[in-house]
Amino acid sequence: MNSVTMQTISDGSITSVRGFQAAGVGCGIKETGAPDLALVYSEAPCRVAGVFTTNRVKAAPVLVDQLVLAKNRDAVHVAVVNSGNANACTGLQGINDAKTMACTAAAALEVKCTASLVMSTGVIGRPLPMDRIGEGIVEAQQRLSSDGGHDAARAIMTTDTRPKELAVKIQLPEQAVTCTIAGMAKGAGMIHPNMATMLSVITTDAAIASAPLQQALGDAVKRSFNMITVDGDTSTNDTVLLLANGLAGNDEIADSASPEFTVFRDGLTHVCTELAKMIVRDGEGATKFVEITVKGAPSFADARQVAMSVANSNLVKTALFGQDPNWGRVLAAVGYSGVEVDPARIALWFAPGGDGGSALQLVRDGQPCDVDEQRAREILSESDIAIIIDLGLGTEAATVWTCDLSYEYVKVNAAYTT
Amino acid sequence: MNSVTMQTISDGSITSVRGFQAAGVGCGIKETGAPDLALVYSEAPCRVAGVFTTNRVKAAPVLVDQLVLAKNRDAVHVAVVNSGNANACTGLQGINDAKTMACTAAAALEVKCTASLVMSTGVIGRPLPMDRIGEGIVEAQQRLSSDGGHDAARAIMTTDTRPKELAVKIQLPEQAVTCTIAGMAKGAGMIHPNMATMLSVITTDAAIASAPLQQALGDAVKRSFNMITVDGDTSTNDTVLLLANGLAGNDEIADSASPEFTVFRDGLTHVCTELAKMIVRDGEGATKFVEITVKGAPSFADARQVAMSVANSNLVKTALFGQDPNWGRVLAAVGYSGVEVDPARIALWFAPGGDGGSALQLVRDGQPCDVDEQRAREILSESDIAIIIDLGLGTEAATVWTCDLSYEYVKVNAAYTT
Repeated sequence: MNSVTMQTISDGSITSVRGFQAAGVGCGIKETGAPDLALVYSEAPCRVAGVFTTNRVKAAPVLVDQLVLAKNRDAVHVAVVNSGNANACTGLQGINDAKTMACTAAAALEVKCTASLVMSTGVIGRPLPMDRIGEGIVEAQQRLSSDGGHDAARAIMTTDTRPKELAVKIQLPEQAVTCTIAGMAKGAGMIHPNMATMLSVITTDAAIASAPLQQALGDAVKRSFNMITVDGDTSTNDTVLLLANGLAGNDEIADSASPEFTVFRDGLTHVCTELAKMIVRDGEGATKFVEITVKGAPSFADARQVAMSVANSNLVKTALFGQDPNWGRVLAAVGYSGVEVDPARIALWFAPGGDGGSALQLVRDGQPCDVDEQRAREILSESDIAIIIDLGLGTEAATVWTCDLSYEYVKVNAAYTT
Repeated sequence: MNSVTMQTISDGSITSVRGFQAAGVGCGIKETGAPDLALVYSEAPCRVAGVFTTNRVKAAPVLVDQLVLAKNRDAVHVAVVNSGNANACTGLQGINDAKTMACTAAAALEVKCTASLVMSTGVIGRPLPMDRIGEGIVEAQQRLSSDGGHDAARAIMTTDTRPKELAVKIQLPEQAVTCTIAGMAKGAGMIHPNMATMLSVITTDAAIASAPLQQALGDAVKRSFNMITVDGDTSTNDTVLLLANGLAGNDEIADSASPEFTVFRDGLTHVCTELAKMIVRDGEGATKFVEITVKGAPSFADARQVAMSVANSNLVKTALFGQDPNWGRVLAAVGYSGVEVDPARIALWFAPGGDGGSALQLVRDGQPCDVDEQRAREILSESDIAIIIDLGLGTEAATVWTCDLSYEYVKVNAAYTT
């Protein structure tokens, strides 16, 4: 996608999309008093698509949203999100609480319960404080505003150190109007791809039919949120919701083989990819952003599996934290990935991330190159690092994004519930 | 196995077995001057069995040992082991170096090259310093002694903080003589089970035929080294060698269906299990020894897969380090294990490890129990902890052992090669 068809909106948020209002308030779920409840509202009814965690232990809001989507994909108005409590492993009480939370938000906005979706993130295994959530919804409804996107993005944070938001305008081919796609996400820990992704709400004013909307979201998540990992732990709550209120006035995108669909899907993929990268950059304790590309693979799935094996290796991640060019650990992780690699064909490079300079080859045909170790250390001292692996077995490639494993990760997670 | 048939030898080592001599010396592979070369020798020829890493990137000594075992399983006399350098990802030079190392040890002891096995552990991707290793072998040969087992166990350590050794006597049924089985191992990091195991040399004086010897070792490894994990990283060098010189004088164990075989295999399994637990207790940065039992599973493989998913969760491991009873992370790891669990049937307990007291139930039928959180914290403050998970789906069970994830793990691994 080029700049002719897509443009980033400066300081954008989910309320950069026409017809969407949002708010974020603190209602006391978090003991710190930090914002912990977000409300997103569109007066115009939204088509909705969702992707959810593949964890078999699914949190109550995931189960409730799946029920709502089974009944209503065409007229959703509300998404209510809390942080500080995941409402997971909370049994029947949790299901009832999630339903009550959705219905309370629906009632505040005078829509049906089935027009309201719900998300939760935070500690697992504790009942939601429903009284506080009820008060929070009332307050958030009063504060709903077309400038409220930033407040909402702050209210869904847990161990995130900063909000994650993005908005882009896209130009559909042969249309007089532009559409907007915007998203917010939270991440930080329990981030790993056998899943939908972390919590994310995406809004758009594009007019698009139900089936292509879901397909576009599935495609986008596969290329973005499912290509990141922080710690290899797949959450019980991962959810991406995409709300499309159709207010842009474009001719409805009805066919996933159309050029309009491609532009929309690419714009959506861009939003999801940027949000996914923001999650990795703000991974718990992360000091490095690491892009791992595996090429020369027999298939995309193989390439991704090898890249994820490297990305989830604690030994690789601690070496990157230590800026230690211990590339043998990368090869070990390639070797135990489960993909049938041929050690004698593997090549490996380290490079500065982004446009930071040229790559340094460390391994050729499975054998170590004569390496300038000082240069290797310089590359690893960057905050953005690229690792490139060529398996020499085919033509497919995949890129995943991860971060390093630092003292701070251990610290953040050693006393999370306390 | 009961005390009638098995007895631990006080202060035992691999040279507690008659006919075995060993030595450990420092030859300068490690810059610290710490011991880094071990030699194990039996004048009587040994039947030998081996189990090796399943990593597709195999270190040179693994490949060389596999070649030796293909030619000679009946008359091995020597095992030479170095620490400080893994001789992995070192290409053809590495293969030649491993062969030279084995042959140098063979020559020093006046046996054929194919009577000598070789193991290496340490940094990946650097050529072995062959001159130092040559000098070390000469010195070690001069120091060979029937008291040298402890020195050998020290010389194979890398980030291990203490040697790992054990010797037991077993009483074969209907035999006048006792046999001895002893082992040494090194562990600490890059410990995960899709593999043979970490480096371990096991000696025995039992007379046993080749096929039951290999079967006994395979069985023992499956129940011991393959049931532990420190960090989920499978090494390129994992090797267990079992040398049996037959000097006990028992009637040769020829049949794996015989009662003698069972006693031998159980004794061997005991030695391997104790060594495996020592590896976990000395895991890099470990402050907790954690036993995870999954029961009520449809199969042993499912039980093991769920237990390993919990054992390898960084979020579970950091919570254990922080003594934080965040049991939701355990359930999340059960949920993403890949096994088709039913969340509504899961039960979960925390208990003090060993014989430390009664278990505290946290989850019943997938729902949280009303828990005494103070008691949960007390249990997690122990250095030995048990986690018991009942899937409620069947009758099979598996137990794995792991440790927590601490600041020290990150520290040890952030600058390993430097």
